[in-house]
Amino acid sequence: MTLTADARPPLEPTDRTRVTRGRNRAVADRARLMALLDDALVAHVGVVVGEHPVVLPTAFAVDPAGPDEGGTLYLHGSVAARWLRATREATVCVTVTELDGLVAARSAFHHSMNYRSAVVIGTARLVEGEDERQRALDLIVDHMVPGRAATLRASTRKELAATAVVAVPLLEASMKQRAEGPVDEPEDIATGTWAGVIPLRRVAGPPLADADATGAVPADVRARAEGLNG
Amino acid sequence: MTLTADARPPLEPTDRTRVTRGRNRAVADRARLMALLDDALVAHVGVVVGEHPVVLPTAFAVDPAGPDEGGTLYLHGSVAARWLRATREATVCVTVTELDGLVAARSAFHHSMNYRSAVVIGTARLVEGEDERQRALDLIVDHMVPGRAATLRASTRKELAATAVVAVPLLEASMKQRAEGPVDEPEDIATGTWAGVIPLRRVAGPPLADADATGAVPADVRARAEGLNG
Repeated sequence: MTLTADARPPLEPTDRTRVTRGRNRAVADRARLMALLDDALVAHVGVVVGEHPVVLPTAFAVDPAGPDEGGTLYLHGSVAARWLRATREATVCVTVTELDGLVAARSAFHHSMNYRSAVVIGTARLVEGEDERQRALDLIVDHMVPGRAATLRASTRKELAATAVVAVPLLEASMKQRAEGPVDEPEDIATGTWAGVIPLRRVAGPPLADADATGAVPADVRARAEGLNG
Repeated sequence: MTLTADARPPLEPTDRTRVTRGRNRAVADRARLMALLDDALVAHVGVVVGEHPVVLPTAFAVDPAGPDEGGTLYLHGSVAARWLRATREATVCVTVTELDGLVAARSAFHHSMNYRSAVVIGTARLVEGEDERQRALDLIVDHMVPGRAATLRASTRKELAATAVVAVPLLEASMKQRAEGPVDEPEDIATGTWAGVIPLRRVAGPPLADADATGAVPADVRARAEGLNG
């Protein structure tokens, strides 16, 4: 998926998504938001259920088309899921974070992490049309293993009826990134104490076939595992 | 940190944390919750700000002592952070997720992920005492790099005054885990299509010293990087 910044709305945070702390970490480039959403595999979606917030991890996918071409974020789950029912016409917050390193500074205060994180706030739209639901599910499968949706049978009507899909416009969003070493006090640096970063990344092991699988690992699955290590 | 289940309150979900979907994935063993919180490095905290939920990634630590010995979860941030101010006496939801694999099934519907995820809901307590704040900050540093807090100078009063620490009781919590291959329809299995799991894990690269660091990588940092790969 190639995403370029120029054809898209700039990342103009609203009062709800503006980065107020650590403004030096704010990222205003929509292409980098899209790249993060491409890298990440899990989103944490927050919704108010009754009186309190609930945050749940979930698979997701991005359709680069949609609300004014800023794109659309899709989430899915069982139609019986309480949190998905609570999203109906509600404001949700979808946060996607990739952890890139542990920053071991010379003081407790300056310990930190390197990360990329996006916060998307918007009104959730329950996707009613069967075609859009099918397409969203295909996007979610392809986000996990690019190219795989085309190799699978179509979802049955029963499966589609059991699946709720929620669309969130990728319009009101902000992104923060930290990608540097410790930022220490001059007097701590003068001590010569060691400080630095433990870089972190996600790797994939060789794909494991289930007991009923026959034949070789398909090219899409192999490519995904290798790509995650690339 | 060794945590045993027997001495602690069982994981008895309330209406707010009960696993209602995928009950077969619910984990009732508090020791496994504690092990997940030990493994994970980032939490996603949800709080209601004004009318809508906000979800932000944050470092955290667990003190196994605290509310009836179920333990205490600590979060921290700048005293100026809007989301931290919003947690004052508010109900927060802290969710911690580790992704363990992509499950490539024989249909879009049965695609899934292997993961461990904990949801903690509770009333946030703003930690007022300087001693508890210092201790919480040390726990957060030691959660990143076990043993490191003892090697650092004490936090200054100015640093403590700039840091807000929030405590959430580890009492109202639930945990889910998926750790298996695809669960496919019999008619899809009969086709002999390949299905399986791409295992995922987090690895650490060699620690990178900053430009002002002198001497060898300290034992705690080296052990942390190696431990993450073990």
